[in-house]
Amino acid sequence: MNAPCVIFAGGEIRTDTVCIPEDAYLICADRGVLAAQQLGLVPDHIVGDFDSLGYIPQYEGADIHPVQKDDTDTMLAVKHVCEKGFSEVFIYGALGGRLDHTIANLQALRYLAERGITGTLLDENNRVTMQKGDSVRRYRRCEGWYFSLLSFSEACTGVSVAGAEYPLHAAVLTQGFPLGVSNHITADYAEVSLQTGYLLVMESRDF
Amino acid sequence: MNAPCVIFAGGEIRTDTVCIPEDAYLICADRGVLAAQQLGLVPDHIVGDFDSLGYIPQYEGADIHPVQKDDTDTMLAVKHVCEKGFSEVFIYGALGGRLDHTIANLQALRYLAERGITGTLLDENNRVTMQKGDSVRRYRRCEGWYFSLLSFSEACTGVSVAGAEYPLHAAVLTQGFPLGVSNHITADYAEVSLQTGYLLVMESRDF
Repeated sequence: MNAPCVIFAGGEIRTDTVCIPEDAYLICADRGVLAAQQLGLVPDHIVGDFDSLGYIPQYEGADIHPVQKDDTDTMLAVKHVCEKGFSEVFIYGALGGRLDHTIANLQALRYLAERGITGTLLDENNRVTMQKGDSVRRYRRCEGWYFSLLSFSEACTGVSVAGAEYPLHAAVLTQGFPLGVSNHITADYAEVSLQTGYLLVMESRDF
Repeated sequence: MNAPCVIFAGGEIRTDTVCIPEDAYLICADRGVLAAQQLGLVPDHIVGDFDSLGYIPQYEGADIHPVQKDDTDTMLAVKHVCEKGFSEVFIYGALGGRLDHTIANLQALRYLAERGITGTLLDENNRVTMQKGDSVRRYRRCEGWYFSLLSFSEACTGVSVAGAEYPLHAAVLTQGFPLGVSNHITADYAEVSLQTGYLLVMESRDF
């Protein structure tokens, strides 16, 4: 589907920093329903075990799961994104809480990328996405933000970066050595090309 | 070397939660020197570009690097750990700041694990380590803390967990699906055995 898709996951969401297109398909996982309520938005899909929320929300068609399950609530939402055939999804409430959840959510980005879907995790200090091999993508400069590239597979090969303070040309990044941290975009956009692997692209600022 | 080794990295360190053995070899990276000063400890080695600290500390033998370099300050400290031949290192100030730094520090754990060195990142809410394939390790129960296992390589095979709420037997974990989040240790220790891969072991609590 070409409509934009947004997930409100169960972590903290600063609703004043959320930006949702009018026609977005909104999925709320567990406590994510609270952010939708605060913003006056009616979710298109609700999923989770609702242990964090503490009660089962009264929405018709809510997809309720037991607490003891193999999927995190965010993964249930991510699977729904795949089933519905979206090509891109923006995920709020997936960063800044427990670190194990954050890492699990990076793995969810990879799950999406393996299926050809671009996922982006957002909060007020971070914009995190996963670029899949055999692709070229552009990233807009955000004044004062850092731009870091980290391999999220054994290796990322043929990594080239143009428009940044530290350009790269056909570099290899591995998961055992953090080479691409604290770069800066100097042009209007950085252009990142990648031959193979899964590349974590993190735009972050100090807070 | 058999003495314990501790790194104070450049992120925030709650010095009241730091626990350092008397005979530890202490390495401070960049702003990590401030934590040592607060604790009245004299570092054994000081390294970094000191851009975060804002001045070059006056320690004899401090290993000063330019700001524009391939290594993060933490990686410079980690390489020193390898050169000195330690088998284990505890790292404070490597979590909770910018997310790209946190992920880079997880990659530093893998760098250590690839060289047979056990690294642990610590703060008041997290204890994160990397288990390398062909090993069995025990993790002590910490009441109220979560226990999560996440693959930090293409796959972790032969993952077995005993002494936990959700036991595993010869499971395969991949980086594209977060299966092992929010487990709990129920016995005095959880025992984790791993055939191949690099397994991120995260003990975390809500904060």
